[in-house]
Amino acid sequence: MTNVLEKSEFPLSSIEFAENLDTQDKLSKFRQEFVIPLRRYVSGENAVTGLMPKRSRELINEELTTWGQKGVEGHWNHTYNRPWATIDELVKEPLANLVGAKPVEVTAMNTLTSNLHSMLVTFFRPTETRFKILIEKKAFPSDHYCVSSHLESRGIDPKIGLLTIAPREGEHTLRTEDIIDLINKDKEIAVVMLSGVQYYTGQLFEIEKITKAGHDAGCIVGWDLAHAVGNVRLFLHDWQVDFACWCSYKYLNSGAGGIAGLFIHEKYKNDQSRPRLAGWWGNDKENRFEMQPEFRPSEGASGYQLSNPSIFTTISLLGSLQVFEAAGIDNLRQKSILLTGYLEKLLVTELKQEFETDMIRILTPSDPQQRGCQLSLEFPENMMQVFSQLQARGVIVDERKPTVIRVSPTPLYNTFKDVYNFVMQLKQVMNIVYK
Amino acid sequence: MTNVLEKSEFPLSSIEFAENLDTQDKLSKFRQEFVIPLRRYVSGENAVTGLMPKRSRELINEELTTWGQKGVEGHWNHTYNRPWATIDELVKEPLANLVGAKPVEVTAMNTLTSNLHSMLVTFFRPTETRFKILIEKKAFPSDHYCVSSHLESRGIDPKIGLLTIAPREGEHTLRTEDIIDLINKDKEIAVVMLSGVQYYTGQLFEIEKITKAGHDAGCIVGWDLAHAVGNVRLFLHDWQVDFACWCSYKYLNSGAGGIAGLFIHEKYKNDQSRPRLAGWWGNDKENRFEMQPEFRPSEGASGYQLSNPSIFTTISLLGSLQVFEAAGIDNLRQKSILLTGYLEKLLVTELKQEFETDMIRILTPSDPQQRGCQLSLEFPENMMQVFSQLQARGVIVDERKPTVIRVSPTPLYNTFKDVYNFVMQLKQVMNIVYK
Ligand SMILES: Cc1ncc(COP(=O)(O)O)c(C=O)c1O
Ligand SMILES: Cc1ncc(COP(=O)(O)O)c(C=O)c1O
Repeated sequence: MTNVLEKSEFPLSSIEFAENLDTQDKLSKFRQEFVIPLRRYVSGENAVTGLMPKRSRELINEELTTWGQKGVEGHWNHTYNRPWATIDELVKEPLANLVGAKPVEVTAMNTLTSNLHSMLVTFFRPTETRFKILIEKKAFPSDHYCVSSHLESRGIDPKIGLLTIAPREGEHTLRTEDIIDLINKDKEIAVVMLSGVQYYTGQLFEIEKITKAGHDAGCIVGWDLAHAVGNVRLFLHDWQVDFACWCSYKYLNSGAGGIAGLFIHEKYKNDQSRPRLAGWWGNDKENRFEMQPEFRPSEGASGYQLSNPSIFTTISLLGSLQVFEAAGIDNLRQKSILLTGYLEKLLVTELKQEFETDMIRILTPSDPQQRGCQLSLEFPENMMQVFSQLQARGVIVDERKPTVIRVSPTPLYNTFKDVYNFVMQLKQVMNIVYK
Repeated sequence: MTNVLEKSEFPLSSIEFAENLDTQDKLSKFRQEFVIPLRRYVSGENAVTGLMPKRSRELINEELTTWGQKGVEGHWNHTYNRPWATIDELVKEPLANLVGAKPVEVTAMNTLTSNLHSMLVTFFRPTETRFKILIEKKAFPSDHYCVSSHLESRGIDPKIGLLTIAPREGEHTLRTEDIIDLINKDKEIAVVMLSGVQYYTGQLFEIEKITKAGHDAGCIVGWDLAHAVGNVRLFLHDWQVDFACWCSYKYLNSGAGGIAGLFIHEKYKNDQSRPRLAGWWGNDKENRFEMQPEFRPSEGASGYQLSNPSIFTTISLLGSLQVFEAAGIDNLRQKSILLTGYLEKLLVTELKQEFETDMIRILTPSDPQQRGCQLSLEFPENMMQVFSQLQARGVIVDERKPTVIRVSPTPLYNTFKDVYNFVMQLKQVMNIVYK
């Protein structure tokens, strides 16, 4: 990877350097699969809401056509052969491929926070001696609210049941060893629930190691993969992850508020010893419509579905997943490492002085194995001014108060030239803001 | 109402009778607001999935346009001035109007079964002496699964905690007095959770009376309004209902798997004494994006939202609600009573002999105050043959095994002539099936 960045015939800071990488990029054609907003550089969308796949727009319109032509019959007689009664089946395999799972282990359902609650109902079984849930101190607020409120609903005071872990004094990211130490030390932890990629710092956690440590210590280990899915390689099955949840509107480009995803390890596929929040859509398809009062769950993750899924959110996700399937997550990750590596290298080269004087810092680990595509740039002063100036120039990045701007070039539709332009704009902006 | 049916200048069984009613129908223009599938009579769609409002199709396409033009910026800078960050605000008022509530009491979120679970977390607070949930014996299966699994998740055996009520021997519908008797007798009931309109029989329960009886007996009273919302008049606020949940894909025509609705009475609007499943979208809008680890709920129903809502499902619902607002639920209910009254009268007239020989029966109460638009027709024998023959003739009704066909002419888009045609087709079909 670094090889490619080092052996170019053009100087790193030249536009030709970027253009040359774009020419060599075998994935560049996938940019055409998306609607790219006019007159601007895209560099931070996907950490919030990814761009629209043309395929998703098309598929949504096909659902509208079917609804209009068939009405209720769309459930079993669909204009495009995707009957609504089984529409959720279509996304299982591509989702499984994306997270390194078997189809029986995954499903699309509900929303992220709501799925986290469902999973806690099933996997958080507090006892007298084990009653804590471990999350990051800087977890995304919804995860905080989720876990605190969930504990309260079980009659456990979050002051007692909520355990958080923070980076060491003066550090921004968590050390795996510190997480594992805590898991080993605190014997009251029932569930470890961390994020795969940290939304604020962009750190990619060592999911396999931490999961193993959790298991060795007798804990259940679940993951919030909001910023990891579609961004990094995941092998949830092999890593023996117990459960994982994610949303699909960030790197999976399914549109704001899109349908979320759920992974439950195969080892639980017929486990009926644990309680679950059940609904008719989790009932075995074979007799789902027979209206029996006894619940007979589908195998695996599908058995946790509650309601018939939205055709619009499911099909929009399918459109995006088809692009992922065509590009291949391995290829994407490879390009992503190069793209973000280039971003980092160009930043530290072009803003050498600014980095030396701590006007800007990168919070994200520099090891590509410890991050996804996102770099979190910290501006200890006047971050919002930098952000506004960038925005005024049509550079779309994402601000996280108080001090961070997230840049997340995505291998599906960002070019090396996008990255080049971003860095050059940032340089100009910093000159103005900090002049 | 019966007046109109009685004083026509045309004989009841003539097509002119129907045509005359259509001519007088002030709501007939709303049919144009929907895409009506070609070459068939529509009479039972909306008990499953209502037809597509043209407005919903348009609004969904506007969201696609915005997504394409703005990308992530759609959250605050929307092509059609409906920023995604507050898109759920748009449906609160029309939803409130529809269910007889204040805007603070309602929100659109998640899905029906999932919202029922949320509400049980909040309102089912079992004690040593009160630990039962009362539902109908013939409740929709998802409600069965929901309540049973919910009880299990609290460590309560459904054999002990699930209480069901069935109609008297030989009767099809529940008597209000029997429900109230049971509520008064069994002091262990914590929550009464019935459906507003019964999905199988079409019975409209006496929500106000039952709610009052429940309260007098010290219970919480919640309602599954899947088949009631958009079908009958509701006054959830005045009736002092504690909570209610509904889906939006039946009478609300928002498309299969559409976003569900939630009502929580104003008296709980600042109640933080009860636990809830929380998420960031339930946090006060004022500081939702400040990423504070402490949850500060929005007032009322919005405080129970978990996740950022889907733009597609929300906007599709908005399109439909705009049609309801234009037509007026009072006018719609008035027409509905006439439409279903006509259906009933024509059926018993045209199929006099079949009714007398019990080849067909109406399970739904004949009192318009005890039903919505749906009539549940029971065919003790060969129901599926009747259904298939109807389907072959392009008559869309809905079968519920073992013996029921649901017919639910809707005042928004069905005509009196639709009803006429349905009855005439049914007559022919019965002649064939039972010859
Ligand atoms: C009365 C009733 N309750 C619950 C449900 C389940 O709905 P959902 O799949 O939206 O959770 C239905 C669906 O038809 C229903 O008719
Ligand atoms: C890491 C993480 N967890 C949870 C959430 C909440 O997502 P939702 O609103 O889909 O529940 C987000 C949303 O941005 C997130 O980034």
